[in-house]
Amino acid sequence: MTVISGADIDAAAARIRGAVARTPLLDASRAAGRPLWLKCENLQVAGSFKLRGAFNMIAGLPPAERRRGVITYSSGNHAQAVACAARAVGTAAVVVMPRTAPAVKVAGARGYGAEVLFEGTTSVERRTRAEREAQGRGLVMIPPFDHPAIIAGQATVGREIVEDARQVARVYVPVGGGGLLAGVATAVKQTHPSAQVIGVEPVGAACLAASLAAGRPVTLERTASVADGLLPVRPGDLTFAAARALVDDVVGVEDEAIERGVAWLCRHAKLVAEPSGAAATAAALAAEPAPDAGISVAVVSGGNVAPAALADLLRGAAVDPPG
Amino acid sequence: MTVISGADIDAAAARIRGAVARTPLLDASRAAGRPLWLKCENLQVAGSFKLRGAFNMIAGLPPAERRRGVITYSSGNHAQAVACAARAVGTAAVVVMPRTAPAVKVAGARGYGAEVLFEGTTSVERRTRAEREAQGRGLVMIPPFDHPAIIAGQATVGREIVEDARQVARVYVPVGGGGLLAGVATAVKQTHPSAQVIGVEPVGAACLAASLAAGRPVTLERTASVADGLLPVRPGDLTFAAARALVDDVVGVEDEAIERGVAWLCRHAKLVAEPSGAAATAAALAAEPAPDAGISVAVVSGGNVAPAALADLLRGAAVDPPG
Repeated sequence: MTVISGADIDAAAARIRGAVARTPLLDASRAAGRPLWLKCENLQVAGSFKLRGAFNMIAGLPPAERRRGVITYSSGNHAQAVACAARAVGTAAVVVMPRTAPAVKVAGARGYGAEVLFEGTTSVERRTRAEREAQGRGLVMIPPFDHPAIIAGQATVGREIVEDARQVARVYVPVGGGGLLAGVATAVKQTHPSAQVIGVEPVGAACLAASLAAGRPVTLERTASVADGLLPVRPGDLTFAAARALVDDVVGVEDEAIERGVAWLCRHAKLVAEPSGAAATAAALAAEPAPDAGISVAVVSGGNVAPAALADLLRGAAVDPPG
Repeated sequence: MTVISGADIDAAAARIRGAVARTPLLDASRAAGRPLWLKCENLQVAGSFKLRGAFNMIAGLPPAERRRGVITYSSGNHAQAVACAARAVGTAAVVVMPRTAPAVKVAGARGYGAEVLFEGTTSVERRTRAEREAQGRGLVMIPPFDHPAIIAGQATVGREIVEDARQVARVYVPVGGGGLLAGVATAVKQTHPSAQVIGVEPVGAACLAASLAAGRPVTLERTASVADGLLPVRPGDLTFAAARALVDDVVGVEDEAIERGVAWLCRHAKLVAEPSGAAATAAALAAEPAPDAGISVAVVSGGNVAPAALADLLRGAAVDPPG
């Protein structure tokens, strides 16, 4: 199933130019002991790939809608991205966050001028409140992953990967709700149909693997992982459809491997990644080196981790991962 | 005084292409509250700018000399860079390190195949031993900073800055022996004579400021700073001459500001910098924002810090610097 087209990705790439950084693709092969490049979305404006989808959707709204202002629900990077994108296009943003949101993430959204509302602790509570506010105040909802404009924005990550690494053989992509995976898979397969696209989930939040096994999106009772950006209990309908059609494999990573991935990126690539941002690298390092000489790319999807939390992670994970 | 020419920089840029990364120039203006871009030499191969000079000199040796093998003395990044460059051109490298060298730096040099010799604890002891070995074994000395080929290699950092930020108004450069500063100043002034080039020294290792005040290179009795790459007690003769002719100002930074700079880069730029690599950023953040709208560039010169040491730095410097 095709959720977005090549033309959608072209349009997104043109729309985000200037507002969204073209992030570097860094060669970490020597330290990895295999051809491994890193797509550095931790160096993206607002600290994660999320700006791509949020900006693409908000900047693509008809002027009359855009003027009404936007709203979203998120505990993390999508909130900051929506706030940042709204400010860039000159409209207002409201973000519904859990009462338990870390101060650093609240400050991040407010730093971009967003109005922050607090509601409950679960994703359902936040979403319900956001939908009510949207209706009452006439705001446009910017969903975190399950929308073609969001997926097309995230797809520009894949487009840049194939432009910068024409010999790419496989791409590791972290999976929360699946927007990044759906977008990257669509973009990569378009020009490199034989390249593998591999989704990476924490073993404690493997909703996509469960859904693919069931043949339909399933909702997990609970999820838990150090990778706080990858905790959705259910993939989106569109993102599931794209993953089922295009993704070659979905693998699980343990929290311990994710933490070692954070330390590995710090030591060997000099990059600050949040746990969610290190999951794909952890999976790439854990894989058997492929017999071919093709390049693997891991998407380092975000870097929004407080220095004190990073210090804890580095202390707990002093040992390098194998390979 | 002109220590190297534009043609020397052109030749260095051509020679290092392919072996040395063209590192990204990242925009950190929003977090800095002023136009500030970061030249990310922490993302360089072997973790610091040092590869540029080492590779330029080694690859530029006449074949008969290059075959003899190379030697250097260093406690840190230059050792790794010489080892890496020697391996890349297919010759042998010997590195004389202090008996007190950190295990991670010894492992770094050995990881590139270098033979490591240990000698004393001071720079003079290491250099004397290296010169004796060079003579006895017929090896070519690759000095850490005071050589035209080293300076021309480091100058490519400046060349890339002016190519990527044509509106650059000032460049902050860390100073150890002065090779990077001499090179960057030469390259920047060549095309942007009105751009300011500012050297940055730890207040505990301010040998260049002392030398400029004296009008000749002076030797400090001792130096001390958390920035272990900026501890030479005397600038080079060539690097001093270039600094005197070309550099607009030399400023000092306290260790505390350097540590806050490490934490700031981690939090806001998602970059791992060693203390020496954060000194220029610390100085740029401490400066009064200029009344013009010109861009400041800080060279993040290296990222070779062990995760445990970084964790300590992040804990000790939780507070953001002003600005």
